[in-house]
Amino acid sequence: MEYRRIKDQDKNEDSVHVDVESLRGKPHSGSPRASVGGSADRTKWKRKSIVTLALTVLTSSQAILIVWSKRAGKYEYSVTTANFLVESLKCALSLAALARIWRNEGVTDDNRLSTTWDEVSVYPIPAVLYLIKNLLQYYIFAYVDAPGYQILKNFNIISTGVLYRIILKRKLSEIQWAAFALLCAGCTTAQLNSNSDNVLQTPLQGWMMAIVMALLSGFAGVYTEAIIKKRPSRNINVQNFWLYVFGMIFNAITIVFQDFDAVVNKGFFHGYSFITVLMILNHALSGIAVSMVMKFADNIVKVYATSVAMLLTAVVSIFLFGFHPSLAFFLGSIIVSISVYLHSIGKVQR
Amino acid sequence: MEYRRIKDQDKNEDSVHVDVESLRGKPHSGSPRASVGGSADRTKWKRKSIVTLALTVLTSSQAILIVWSKRAGKYEYSVTTANFLVESLKCALSLAALARIWRNEGVTDDNRLSTTWDEVSVYPIPAVLYLIKNLLQYYIFAYVDAPGYQILKNFNIISTGVLYRIILKRKLSEIQWAAFALLCAGCTTAQLNSNSDNVLQTPLQGWMMAIVMALLSGFAGVYTEAIIKKRPSRNINVQNFWLYVFGMIFNAITIVFQDFDAVVNKGFFHGYSFITVLMILNHALSGIAVSMVMKFADNIVKVYATSVAMLLTAVVSIFLFGFHPSLAFFLGSIIVSISVYLHSIGKVQR
Repeated sequence: MEYRRIKDQDKNEDSVHVDVESLRGKPHSGSPRASVGGSADRTKWKRKSIVTLALTVLTSSQAILIVWSKRAGKYEYSVTTANFLVESLKCALSLAALARIWRNEGVTDDNRLSTTWDEVSVYPIPAVLYLIKNLLQYYIFAYVDAPGYQILKNFNIISTGVLYRIILKRKLSEIQWAAFALLCAGCTTAQLNSNSDNVLQTPLQGWMMAIVMALLSGFAGVYTEAIIKKRPSRNINVQNFWLYVFGMIFNAITIVFQDFDAVVNKGFFHGYSFITVLMILNHALSGIAVSMVMKFADNIVKVYATSVAMLLTAVVSIFLFGFHPSLAFFLGSIIVSISVYLHSIGKVQR
Repeated sequence: MEYRRIKDQDKNEDSVHVDVESLRGKPHSGSPRASVGGSADRTKWKRKSIVTLALTVLTSSQAILIVWSKRAGKYEYSVTTANFLVESLKCALSLAALARIWRNEGVTDDNRLSTTWDEVSVYPIPAVLYLIKNLLQYYIFAYVDAPGYQILKNFNIISTGVLYRIILKRKLSEIQWAAFALLCAGCTTAQLNSNSDNVLQTPLQGWMMAIVMALLSGFAGVYTEAIIKKRPSRNINVQNFWLYVFGMIFNAITIVFQDFDAVVNKGFFHGYSFITVLMILNHALSGIAVSMVMKFADNIVKVYATSVAMLLTAVVSIFLFGFHPSLAFFLGSIIVSISVYLHSIGKVQR
């Protein structure tokens, strides 16, 4: 499915447009056999699996790090500086990967860093969308409490599916749509607790903001996929570099507006600890994994990976933190598992 | 799917064994067009739909009557005498239907009441199974509370599906199996409340008894379908008559063992009221609807009908009793709806 140009609209699920160029000269993605025509499909499948697995593991360890940091005591570092460092680290890692590729393959049209206005002009858009979403996040808490917001965030799943269909014009089978709705219902079920019903008392403004935020977040994700897939043969590290440069710029702006005084008075790294460094490292790697999934798989796979990660986190927490899973968590896990199963057989059944 | 003999094992879903006899001379089931070959499929589909709808409406009104009776105050009637009256009423209604058929069509081999030992010998088995299940019900409350028992009862859905596959040798598609597991998860989710997690503390004996009860109940249902479908051309009212005669006998035995003193001292109808009569009427009609669904559809349809009825009851309760649906109820309803949808497209997709 990957590498299909977004312009290849309404094609049959099975007739995948393979961008031949993208299968050549990409030793960095782990498999030197990619150039052998016959095993191309298997290589693509393998790469898709690896990036999906990486995203799942990184996302679940992310949540575990957060629990761990809370357990270890409160850390007073500023979130805006941490976000800026995450973007910078992602930039640096992309450049490092590129340097290795240049050394091995030389500089080609596909992996050179210099770009055109036409290519780069769309890259700030996801960063702007996330910025708006994060700003809205401050206001929604006037209408919803934090656990309620966690539940409303599951709208993201639906909005991603709908925008994926509308913007990328990709088709999901009836079964895959049903599976996607189940994923949303299952994730929400797994998060149910005795106070969850409060969310039903959310005022209209709260619902509207939650829906707008889900649409912004879904749109940013789908738009990123569109940007990355628009040039299938372009090296992902170059695409990432430009995405993250704008991420750095917008996060720098946020620091100035939000935490300028704190940074000037207490210093940039005030409150940082070993666990903060681990979290920044984890966020950076997760971010790169998301880009890789966008390139080699799609937003649907991303949503499944992060949802399964949520359940994995809880399972790991049983052993690490003595977390007691609720009946709702068991039911949600069963529903999410069935959703994953239906998504996978949904394509074959068409 | 209906009318396939149980011996026709492992046949393809589409190659339905149509018992031609059963399509002739059955004006009582509402459609005189049954004898026209071309519209036979449509007539069958219509009959299946009507009995399914009847079961759904009767089951949901049953639950509403129970709520109503609780609201109106406690009724001190004996449950065993009420059960006996339900069986007697079902017997009487079957005889009345038969009398009408005899008048219109005359007595044939298929609709005569007299029977052979070979035919009738299996009819007591479901009644015995339900009797054992009801006896176990007294003991399970030593390990589980009433709301917990309601949740464990959802095992019935799974046991019915599994026994349906094993005993009737009918196949469900992968999607239909997934849908069936979702039905169970969805019904349980819809019933979640703040005390549901207690059920996870059920001791092993409680789990074992719940599973045995689910197997007994599932086996009784599947066995009834096997008995009724074994003779596809036999009039359903004759089959019902014999089923219910044994139901009467076993309920009479239960009265003697359980409520003999109360009946002798206070009288058979002690504590009966208008609403008790309505509930007996409703149970009798529901019981007949279940038999009809077994004859013209199957146990899977029965499970779906009663599950959807549970949700309908809650929706009606919102208007009748000001019931406040929980978030879990919404999620469960969505999951059950998706399950119904998947079950219906599951067959086509094969």
